[in-house]
Amino acid sequence: MPEVNRAAATSVVASHVVTGDEAGTVWTPGEVVWADGVIQYVGPPARGPVGRRIEMGEGVVFPGFVNGHGHAAMSLLRGFADDSRLMPWLTEHIWPIENRLTPEDVEVGTLLAAAEMLHAGVVGFADMYYFPGAVVRAAETSGLRAMVGRGLAGGAGAQAAVEEAVALAAELAGRGGRVAGWLAPHAPYTVEPPLAAMIAEAAQRHGLAIHIHLAESEEEGQQVRDRAGVSPIGWADEVGLLTGRTVVAHGVYLTEPDIARLARSGAAVIHCPTSNLKLGNGVAPVIALERAGVTVGLGTDGPASTNRLDPFQEMRLAAWLQKSATGDPAAFSARDALRLATRGSARALGWDSGVLAVGHWADLAVASWWAPHVVPHADPLSTLVYATTPGDVRYTVVGGQVVVDDGVITTFDEGAVLRESMNRARALTPS
Amino acid sequence: MPEVNRAAATSVVASHVVTGDEAGTVWTPGEVVWADGVIQYVGPPARGPVGRRIEMGEGVVFPGFVNGHGHAAMSLLRGFADDSRLMPWLTEHIWPIENRLTPEDVEVGTLLAAAEMLHAGVVGFADMYYFPGAVVRAAETSGLRAMVGRGLAGGAGAQAAVEEAVALAAELAGRGGRVAGWLAPHAPYTVEPPLAAMIAEAAQRHGLAIHIHLAESEEEGQQVRDRAGVSPIGWADEVGLLTGRTVVAHGVYLTEPDIARLARSGAAVIHCPTSNLKLGNGVAPVIALERAGVTVGLGTDGPASTNRLDPFQEMRLAAWLQKSATGDPAAFSARDALRLATRGSARALGWDSGVLAVGHWADLAVASWWAPHVVPHADPLSTLVYATTPGDVRYTVVGGQVVVDDGVITTFDEGAVLRESMNRARALTPS
Repeated sequence: MPEVNRAAATSVVASHVVTGDEAGTVWTPGEVVWADGVIQYVGPPARGPVGRRIEMGEGVVFPGFVNGHGHAAMSLLRGFADDSRLMPWLTEHIWPIENRLTPEDVEVGTLLAAAEMLHAGVVGFADMYYFPGAVVRAAETSGLRAMVGRGLAGGAGAQAAVEEAVALAAELAGRGGRVAGWLAPHAPYTVEPPLAAMIAEAAQRHGLAIHIHLAESEEEGQQVRDRAGVSPIGWADEVGLLTGRTVVAHGVYLTEPDIARLARSGAAVIHCPTSNLKLGNGVAPVIALERAGVTVGLGTDGPASTNRLDPFQEMRLAAWLQKSATGDPAAFSARDALRLATRGSARALGWDSGVLAVGHWADLAVASWWAPHVVPHADPLSTLVYATTPGDVRYTVVGGQVVVDDGVITTFDEGAVLRESMNRARALTPS
Repeated sequence: MPEVNRAAATSVVASHVVTGDEAGTVWTPGEVVWADGVIQYVGPPARGPVGRRIEMGEGVVFPGFVNGHGHAAMSLLRGFADDSRLMPWLTEHIWPIENRLTPEDVEVGTLLAAAEMLHAGVVGFADMYYFPGAVVRAAETSGLRAMVGRGLAGGAGAQAAVEEAVALAAELAGRGGRVAGWLAPHAPYTVEPPLAAMIAEAAQRHGLAIHIHLAESEEEGQQVRDRAGVSPIGWADEVGLLTGRTVVAHGVYLTEPDIARLARSGAAVIHCPTSNLKLGNGVAPVIALERAGVTVGLGTDGPASTNRLDPFQEMRLAAWLQKSATGDPAAFSARDALRLATRGSARALGWDSGVLAVGHWADLAVASWWAPHVVPHADPLSTLVYATTPGDVRYTVVGGQVVVDDGVITTFDEGAVLRESMNRARALTPS
């Protein structure tokens, strides 16, 4: 580290460093050093001079998770009207409440989600919701990275919404922080062709990324086929929404030609196993997608339906569902699941996180491995993916900033957010 | 509480009491009082005189979980050789290690599992493994309830093993503690008809419960049908192993006649969703079983394959898999999942736990609901099942004894068990 100010460097030493690199490198024990927001050293403990050294003992340093798809502010509606069928859930419960949401609700709900994600080792998230300005404020307060965009649909005011999204993205790009804007057309069944064309054109002109729900349910596929004569992926491709910077949420019901189109376009897919399982939406063909060269990441979807924003649960489910769907316990491993949650999601969002390697962003997390559910830890990758929980995470570092420090969030008052969330949820939901 | 020594009574007050009763009663806020190992009061906070009152604030009191099927000591082999196919996993990895296990290994491994279960709000567990004397010692040390039996199979020494199991059960019954013995024939593919008959006869003569793996995989069904011309359930019924005190682990591949046989016999089924999913063994017909009148409980199976002993995860998966398999998000609710993990498993094992009601065993747990993953908590049942984690559990009470007290195990030195487990695992598994 010749050019680094060592007094400004931070380091963590632990019994295990899971680098998350292509080769599956693990250091036992290991040290990671970062400075100026970038990783400077990964390897066996060298214990050179640093400004601060964190000694974890029995524990693991790993690349921070990237949550590739969600609606963070829906944390305020957590567990509200669970166990309902989709349409009554939306029309009778969720939409009437969402109609009453204020920007302040969205800001508090997003901070609540940010607290949950930070405690789980998440370093950044992808978002699609209302009041993007409020989401940006919460994301910036939290210290997390974020891709933010208002869900675009309909109807009246759609053109203005696209223009606002373009303006927000430009403003955020100018600011140069951890939060960026993108264009988030909701889904093929809520976006008419003229709006789709407008979004595609704006994305191309301004070089913006696109985030869209595609091929999530069988009904959606049927509806799009009835209306447009093509699959959801085919529709998106034809209207120009499938670009090298498109991030497709879900991607469950895919034909071979769909997968080939995705691969050709360079679009990425975010797998949301909990959401798909809970809503009875089948199992995404993750293995086939990756084999075809499509980047696949992992996402929690919104907490109103999936209840928790837990990347460990998503990794476990991703592995188990592929094993179960193929009938082969060796078909998808802990290492594969970790790749989705880290490098996969990061690549989908165009971020330089997801791996502990010199020169990459210092986006990482540290968990304790000293509890009866993670002892012994014969296989570090297996222990990280199948046994570790958010409750084990002690440190989360974003761009070199220690945002969770020995279990405490350093960027905002978590207790105040919990209290405010309780109050706002009570006011929003019928008692 | 007229006849109770109030100074010996303990009480907990919290924002929520989920009773787990048939009607789904929840007290908001609520209090639970127990003395002499039995629940004395459940209702709104009365704050009468007690020897000790625990003030939980925002949190939930709920019936402690009963883990209806497992191999606790396999915690020592957690995550060892994950992502392998079943036969190489068993023959190359697990069996060679199990051949070297000592009673001391089993005692330590069971204590490790006990620590994990206690922290997750579990009050008792069903076990099938080697060295049952060591399992009994660990269970008695831990304060947990347990049903213990050596897995019976083979072969040479089988008759002696049955006699030993009968003797152990008699000894434990005489002791009158929280641990009892049962007969645990391993599975139809490892138990020959003469051994099965011997076990059935011993169970009947001594009034003992039976624990057996049945209808877990498609291959098992095919094998039993090829050999005996009947289904695994049919085989068990014909050899006399399906009694009103039989606890069937798994019960995935069941025909309508199988379900009818189970209902007629009074045998219970323990659903193990994580294990089934990870091993690619399909989804148990839980709804059809319960509709036919079969008692269904929930189990974690062994931690070498499922990695963690987490009843919350099992509840969530149980609900999600039924929703997914039926395509109906309303088919199986949080309340249904809670019933499996509490009353269902308790009834299967013949225990008086699983519900917070006056006169029942004081087997309960208390979790904090003050963290970003459980706030807000609009629906208490949904929050308990879909959002709460073992890390939220602060108190676990077994037979009135506070075994986890503000997060600390009171019955044994947890740190010593963690250290001993690490050492023994290192010695057992190749590095």
